[in-house]
Amino acid sequence: MILEPNMLIDEMSVLRILDQTLLPNEEVFIDLKTTEEIWEAIRKLRVRGAPAIGIAAGFGAYLAAKNIEADDFDTFHRLWKEKLDYLATSRPTAVNLFYALERMEKCALDNKDKTIPEIKALLKTESENIRLEDIEQNKKISQFGLSLIKDGDTVLTHCNAGPIATSHYGTALGPILLAKELGMDIKVYADETRPLLQGARLTAFELHRAGVDVTLICDNMASIVMKQGKVQACFVGCDRVAMNGDAANKIGTSGVAILAKHYGIPFYVLGPTTTIDRNAKTGNDIKIELRDPEEIKTMWYEKPMAPMGVKTYNPAFDVTDNELITAIVTEKGVVYPPYVENLKKLFE
Amino acid sequence: MILEPNMLIDEMSVLRILDQTLLPNEEVFIDLKTTEEIWEAIRKLRVRGAPAIGIAAGFGAYLAAKNIEADDFDTFHRLWKEKLDYLATSRPTAVNLFYALERMEKCALDNKDKTIPEIKALLKTESENIRLEDIEQNKKISQFGLSLIKDGDTVLTHCNAGPIATSHYGTALGPILLAKELGMDIKVYADETRPLLQGARLTAFELHRAGVDVTLICDNMASIVMKQGKVQACFVGCDRVAMNGDAANKIGTSGVAILAKHYGIPFYVLGPTTTIDRNAKTGNDIKIELRDPEEIKTMWYEKPMAPMGVKTYNPAFDVTDNELITAIVTEKGVVYPPYVENLKKLFE
Repeated sequence: MILEPNMLIDEMSVLRILDQTLLPNEEVFIDLKTTEEIWEAIRKLRVRGAPAIGIAAGFGAYLAAKNIEADDFDTFHRLWKEKLDYLATSRPTAVNLFYALERMEKCALDNKDKTIPEIKALLKTESENIRLEDIEQNKKISQFGLSLIKDGDTVLTHCNAGPIATSHYGTALGPILLAKELGMDIKVYADETRPLLQGARLTAFELHRAGVDVTLICDNMASIVMKQGKVQACFVGCDRVAMNGDAANKIGTSGVAILAKHYGIPFYVLGPTTTIDRNAKTGNDIKIELRDPEEIKTMWYEKPMAPMGVKTYNPAFDVTDNELITAIVTEKGVVYPPYVENLKKLFE
Repeated sequence: MILEPNMLIDEMSVLRILDQTLLPNEEVFIDLKTTEEIWEAIRKLRVRGAPAIGIAAGFGAYLAAKNIEADDFDTFHRLWKEKLDYLATSRPTAVNLFYALERMEKCALDNKDKTIPEIKALLKTESENIRLEDIEQNKKISQFGLSLIKDGDTVLTHCNAGPIATSHYGTALGPILLAKELGMDIKVYADETRPLLQGARLTAFELHRAGVDVTLICDNMASIVMKQGKVQACFVGCDRVAMNGDAANKIGTSGVAILAKHYGIPFYVLGPTTTIDRNAKTGNDIKIELRDPEEIKTMWYEKPMAPMGVKTYNPAFDVTDNELITAIVTEKGVVYPPYVENLKKLFE
């Protein structure tokens, strides 16, 4: 079965999430009740995956609004804007975070003539809509993605873009889970995805639970399985796509794309159009988050795996050049090169 | 300082090694006194690195001979051969293991007309010679390797082919440590090398201790540092090289080579000519060791990092195709393509 609901927004104004940092050893759901708790959950990767971050941020924006006491819109907006700016600092790379915050702010600004309680109610609906739309987008992406492979194929994936990174099927894992529902036989190689092992802890967990034939490998084993002819396609998610098709995703994704090109294997990036950043002309415009060296040097902060004095470099993402991407799969369809032309059409 | 001597064969017939499985947290030297202890040390990677395995195996063969009570050569040889065959089962990929065992056996066979005590004494000298020759080879490889880079360059390496994988400078790390001695400034990116983290635990440890500017990265970060123009050359060791230049080395090496080719960075394989397997025509003739799934699924067998029921695939090595290798650096010189022609010349 697909592990869901991953995110429940209940009537009590609580965001219930599966704490992804504890997987696969513990399945703990936590209730986030304040903007600060949501900020912390995003920063610490308790909730992660570009679409899921967007949903959490949208709800965080609503929670912030809900608790503001103000009689006029300008006061409300000034106080609220501080909280929105604060939420925006939680993680820098996934565009869905900023998209959700901007969408929430636009909703308020578009309704500034209404009363503050009315605006708060509209914001609640808007944040719920972000989640509902994500579910619909997941389904469409899964269907389009499935059209690119055939029964019996094996797909290699990197990091996690499954149900818990979104709100339903996921993006990169969507076609695989849909195939499973349809009784098709799609096998998966899951890169473990160092340093935080989202592939081992989350992708292997989700697929194994769903009954998919998944084989876990270390990141550096992608080359040998491709060379052995075991992989027919690569499916990865994305955190931000530039208008020329350059795609930021979990660190190591660009390496997988280069291997796929070398071995003649198609490489697909899957994500909702909300992941496409219309302000980013190329991958050079995408800011890459650098994270704590301890993620590399100690395992779960418990035991040193490297000499303590050694320097590390720990970028959380890399950018895959558009020329390495066979197609970008969105809820609006499969986009092929030339991306500069064809991505623009999505927004016309 | 270079950490050495890594391997001391003392008069008491003890092989003293640094237990590499405990690095970097503990520096423990252990004394191996029996063939069985040496087999276990090779199998469990307490001693690792193709040249170091060869040295340990050679000494293990001597220890086995030393304890055999026999009056005639045929009895001695029959009993000893059992032990040699046993040592050969410790690890399948590094050719130096088999090379050392064959060399030891040849030494005995060439002297079969001598007395058993005389043969035992010759075997002791022969096993010591394997180590002494390795030191000389290390020095030559380091000098030839250094000729391929220039002061100020940064080298990326994968796994560990440093002093503790050999008996002196190492192979892939040899030019870097020689450069340090000469007061040159060569920086290093060290891939951590999952699943057993030889890069983090051993390479970063050795280079950091030697005062080399080393930056530890996860394997999947090699692409981003190459893309950023930070790497001028790749140096890797090898466990077995086929006569067409295909080179088996730690899992992930072939991926690094493909990235290097994509980014136009030279990729060098360094190793003594004893690593060249004259019986292997191509990489297809090289047997790849498959290791325990738990190496991927649990960290140091302590804490699960993946769902317990999930399948894994855990090859310890991969083969890098000759077309991806800029040159092979041996103690006899730098060998360029065409390898079929030029490797053969080394043995003429």
